[in-house]
Amino acid sequence: MELVDHLRDERNKAQFDVEAMKVVWAGSPQELQLCDRMANLVANHPAFEKLKRPMLVRKELFKNSLRKAAYARKLVIDLGLSEEEAKWLRFYIDEPTYPDLHWGMFIPAIEGQGSEEQKEKWLPLSRNMQIIGCYAQTEMGHGSNVQGLETTATFDAQQDHFIIHSPTLTSTKWWPGGLGKVSTHAVVYARLIVNGEFHGVHGWYNYYSFSFFLYLEDHSPLPGITVGDVGLKFGNGAYNTMDNGLLRFHHVRIPRNQMLMRVSQVSREGKYMQCDDVPRQLIYGTMVSVRQTIVAMVSRTLSRAVCIATRYSALRRQHSSSSLVVPCFLMIDYQSQQSRLFPLLASAYAFKFVGEWLKWLYTDVKQRLEANDFSTLPEAHASTAGLKSLTTSATVDGIEECMKLCGGDGYLVSSGLPELFAVSVPACTYEGDNTVLMLQVARFVVKTVSEVGYKEPLGTSSYIRRLNTLLHNNCLVQTGEDWVKGDRIVEAFEARAARMAVTCTQHLAKFQDPEQGFSELSADLVEVAVAHCQLIVVSKFVEKLAQDIPGKGVKEALEVLCYVYALFLVHKHQGDFLVTGYLTPKQASLANRQLRILYSRLRPNAIALVDAFNHTDHYLSSVVGRYDGNVYPNLYQAAFNDPFNDSHVPDGYHQYIHPILNQTLAKL
Amino acid sequence: MELVDHLRDERNKAQFDVEAMKVVWAGSPQELQLCDRMANLVANHPAFEKLKRPMLVRKELFKNSLRKAAYARKLVIDLGLSEEEAKWLRFYIDEPTYPDLHWGMFIPAIEGQGSEEQKEKWLPLSRNMQIIGCYAQTEMGHGSNVQGLETTATFDAQQDHFIIHSPTLTSTKWWPGGLGKVSTHAVVYARLIVNGEFHGVHGWYNYYSFSFFLYLEDHSPLPGITVGDVGLKFGNGAYNTMDNGLLRFHHVRIPRNQMLMRVSQVSREGKYMQCDDVPRQLIYGTMVSVRQTIVAMVSRTLSRAVCIATRYSALRRQHSSSSLVVPCFLMIDYQSQQSRLFPLLASAYAFKFVGEWLKWLYTDVKQRLEANDFSTLPEAHASTAGLKSLTTSATVDGIEECMKLCGGDGYLVSSGLPELFAVSVPACTYEGDNTVLMLQVARFVVKTVSEVGYKEPLGTSSYIRRLNTLLHNNCLVQTGEDWVKGDRIVEAFEARAARMAVTCTQHLAKFQDPEQGFSELSADLVEVAVAHCQLIVVSKFVEKLAQDIPGKGVKEALEVLCYVYALFLVHKHQGDFLVTGYLTPKQASLANRQLRILYSRLRPNAIALVDAFNHTDHYLSSVVGRYDGNVYPNLYQAAFNDPFNDSHVPDGYHQYIHPILNQTLAKL
Repeated sequence: MELVDHLRDERNKAQFDVEAMKVVWAGSPQELQLCDRMANLVANHPAFEKLKRPMLVRKELFKNSLRKAAYARKLVIDLGLSEEEAKWLRFYIDEPTYPDLHWGMFIPAIEGQGSEEQKEKWLPLSRNMQIIGCYAQTEMGHGSNVQGLETTATFDAQQDHFIIHSPTLTSTKWWPGGLGKVSTHAVVYARLIVNGEFHGVHGWYNYYSFSFFLYLEDHSPLPGITVGDVGLKFGNGAYNTMDNGLLRFHHVRIPRNQMLMRVSQVSREGKYMQCDDVPRQLIYGTMVSVRQTIVAMVSRTLSRAVCIATRYSALRRQHSSSSLVVPCFLMIDYQSQQSRLFPLLASAYAFKFVGEWLKWLYTDVKQRLEANDFSTLPEAHASTAGLKSLTTSATVDGIEECMKLCGGDGYLVSSGLPELFAVSVPACTYEGDNTVLMLQVARFVVKTVSEVGYKEPLGTSSYIRRLNTLLHNNCLVQTGEDWVKGDRIVEAFEARAARMAVTCTQHLAKFQDPEQGFSELSADLVEVAVAHCQLIVVSKFVEKLAQDIPGKGVKEALEVLCYVYALFLVHKHQGDFLVTGYLTPKQASLANRQLRILYSRLRPNAIALVDAFNHTDHYLSSVVGRYDGNVYPNLYQAAFNDPFNDSHVPDGYHQYIHPILNQTLAKL
Repeated sequence: MELVDHLRDERNKAQFDVEAMKVVWAGSPQELQLCDRMANLVANHPAFEKLKRPMLVRKELFKNSLRKAAYARKLVIDLGLSEEEAKWLRFYIDEPTYPDLHWGMFIPAIEGQGSEEQKEKWLPLSRNMQIIGCYAQTEMGHGSNVQGLETTATFDAQQDHFIIHSPTLTSTKWWPGGLGKVSTHAVVYARLIVNGEFHGVHGWYNYYSFSFFLYLEDHSPLPGITVGDVGLKFGNGAYNTMDNGLLRFHHVRIPRNQMLMRVSQVSREGKYMQCDDVPRQLIYGTMVSVRQTIVAMVSRTLSRAVCIATRYSALRRQHSSSSLVVPCFLMIDYQSQQSRLFPLLASAYAFKFVGEWLKWLYTDVKQRLEANDFSTLPEAHASTAGLKSLTTSATVDGIEECMKLCGGDGYLVSSGLPELFAVSVPACTYEGDNTVLMLQVARFVVKTVSEVGYKEPLGTSSYIRRLNTLLHNNCLVQTGEDWVKGDRIVEAFEARAARMAVTCTQHLAKFQDPEQGFSELSADLVEVAVAHCQLIVVSKFVEKLAQDIPGKGVKEALEVLCYVYALFLVHKHQGDFLVTGYLTPKQASLANRQLRILYSRLRPNAIALVDAFNHTDHYLSSVVGRYDGNVYPNLYQAAFNDPFNDSHVPDGYHQYIHPILNQTLAKL
């Protein structure tokens, strides 16, 4: 095999220590080593080959995923991998499958909502995977809308049973991953009815979960249970490796002790009790946890798309539109390409760092909750909800942009981008619809603003303390260079968010019915929330730069990324900055001009910055994003590897083309 | 079968005559009747069933498409359909297949570039489909970049042959539709070499096309030809029904008279001649034609996605986020939904009308070209290039938004949206990459601006005549109602485009090398082009409203759509309007407030406005977008129609799940 590196010249251009940057991206030398080890374990194991995946029909695809999950489980056992190692192993296998839900939702639900006794019973079985569980919350008619859940659990005191029932079609459990075919157990959310009385209509933490078997020994469903897969989803392989399921109950009886009883209980006599020593806010802690994990993962997803598009752009040549006299440029040397690609590269780093901060935030919140300190919970909840929304939306848009940046070839499945897009889109909807989440953030921001003076804003909202300054002091930028100062950038984003929030709060005050105001102004409220969340990302990036970052040129390269991210947003949202009067048109233009200068400073580092993600070719699974840049021969070969090219005469040719050519169609 | 109409209440709300609106959307009563007839012909013919399509593997999928194409051809013959009727028949069959290229590219290429003799020979064969052709222009290394084509056609005077050759891997023809498996013939673009001299290096109309057989009688490729499919593309079915192909030549000889010789000729003696009586600009006329067709089609694509999302939004209920006390609203009643959905609904209408205007423009240009009047060609070229770019980008983004607006269910293949998205994305790349096209538009606009005073701007650029007024007179809006006046809206868009163009032209003038200026400012130039193109769409919509439009309430409903489209853009791009000083922050806020009022005025008409598209359920192929709104039972049924639900125990269960549960994985 010929060893080539078509990107060697690009790599030589790097002005920083790539190995040191790998550590920054990974988070620590230990994490780099861990990820690298797991990524290569997967890449070198034949069971995890994935190139043929998009060509399989659903049943084969699913069987293939079960096979991979089994090999993964075997590796975990054989190598004695820790839970952390196993998580990364699954991550690099890069196929959504039932263990994601078993480990990510089912076990945490038991841990969080089960009584001590229940945990003792269920957790060892779950951790050994002697049972496999899923998390059945959403219903056909009710997605983000937990208050609307219709499934009922009626207590039958006589037999000491709950009767689980789906009273309507729309109460069918719909979408839970792992439910369709694999899970033996489910945690099911239902409305509790005791003595004819509903419990739990005022908030979703009042819903009750029940863990129980779905199947008989031969894996046929228990009597009264209808279970199945919701059907084919977007993309060739994509999320179709997951058995997102549907579930209906026809008066299914389960023993009382299968209600998860840590937060509330029903006694043998049918007495409903809330356990006062357990804060219900714990539930929000779980949401914070799940969403911070999404943010952490999504930065990697974006980095993957950006890596592919950057490498392709550094290989693909294109003439300028005027004449052949001008030499053939690399795509990456065109400003029109840079202005679309580099902000995405900067976003990947920005999301990584904000994800690290969220991880810290979650740890902090958890400790506080355990000490019965709920003071930071609303702020933490708003930050994670908003950042989940902001980063997943930007990532999905970014993958699509990367696909387009690779021209026609981005559209080939072999580029890796179509599958990456299709598997990522649902992140905008699951664990909270992104628009609904932003409206929650907006509520929090507006509330914080309206409480100024008698309640101290905390954490990410503490800029609201300086409301007066932010409303009245306009931007001081006079030159382009003035824009590349951390404090000034952060202040600009603070002023924009604060001014938009205040304007919206004033508009809301004009409505007699606050809820009507919220509804009518919801589009504006979403914009307020976006401004608030972008401020968080920018300020966490600037804070990161204030840390000690070792490695030649590493901090300098990160600074360029930080300002690219921030000034790209200033330009994109210049309407916000101008309409609030914070910026003058002149200052906005200076930001845009400075952005161009930053692109040219980023340019030589582009390939090294995507190399620093340390993605294996297996993980990328992209012909156009290969590390060695040897694109064209492999693109050509990939075409001929497609089974469709086994024959020149396609199936159906003699039946359906010949008669057309020979004018004998009448016989069809 | 139970007959229901879950949307009846919504339909009763309509404030206009839906049947009259259908005529407006279709273009004329005749076109409505034609489309309706073809749509129902397809919908009622069992051969064109398409629900199972996404579940087929590529070979089956392709065979299935060949079958449909054969039945379509048979219908055309049996019913004696006109070319126009046949075009709509293919449109409603809704599967990209080889006839699209045969009729849309191959035949027009022969018509446009063949000599009289060649046309006499090839056209009857083509029109009878005794030969099937494709259009092989793009190469592996060269997409939008026609100057870079590397395939050579060397004249061999001795044998009166051309020798077609692929000198490099990157010269492999790559992507032409219909080439991979079906076409018997190709029009191939190559660089002409006569007597060792290259012809055609200064522009793509200097390339030469050759029409010739690709296959032997048994459909195995001719000696020297390598042909195949480029491989799997994005989406489950989507564009994979098309055999986008690759093609390599190893010194393949073809007779001299297979060079298409209308524009240039090579004589028997090897003398190269340009035919002066045939304007080369005709080639641009062809591009104008193809792109105006894309705009016409893309408005229907967007209308399809919008129809699905609007109907779903008018059925789906969601609680507000605060409590159950508030009644359960329809999604469509939330402003957060309206502000995402209604601008797309308005865009569908806007794109339809600008498409109609483009059709007129093409006819006009063609007549002028035939009379050797090339004066309007640059303007027509810029308009079509820019509108192709603007409308396809907005449509693809719009489909994705519609998918998200349907929550999780939009992500199910049965919603119809994933396939619609995947099949539409390539429109951003084929027939000119959208960014490259916008840069061409920007060049035209900047040139027009810099020639003011000594060259009269024409057509869509004639606003540049009033440059002085547009630069110095700011917006006069004082109330929200002031924003809903056609002239004022158009003037705002003119002022924005003119001011941005002038600023960019001034910045360009600072560069010694104009090409370097174009490169460095390309991101800004794209924004100028977008502003110019949005002005065209808005002004054509306003012009449409100035026409006589019959039908109760029809014009009023269209007016609301027009202003929603325009004010949505004013808000989205308020940065442009503010940075150029045309609007004050107050005026921008008034526009946004007026937009909210327009949403509430649009609301009662929403369902009727999508009904007016007159889409059949077959064409929509969407469970959630059904005409009768009977979503949930059909969603449930669709899940069980998936072959994956044939069994509770999935393939692989005993092999890969059982050993995990029973802790016997060691044997794997």
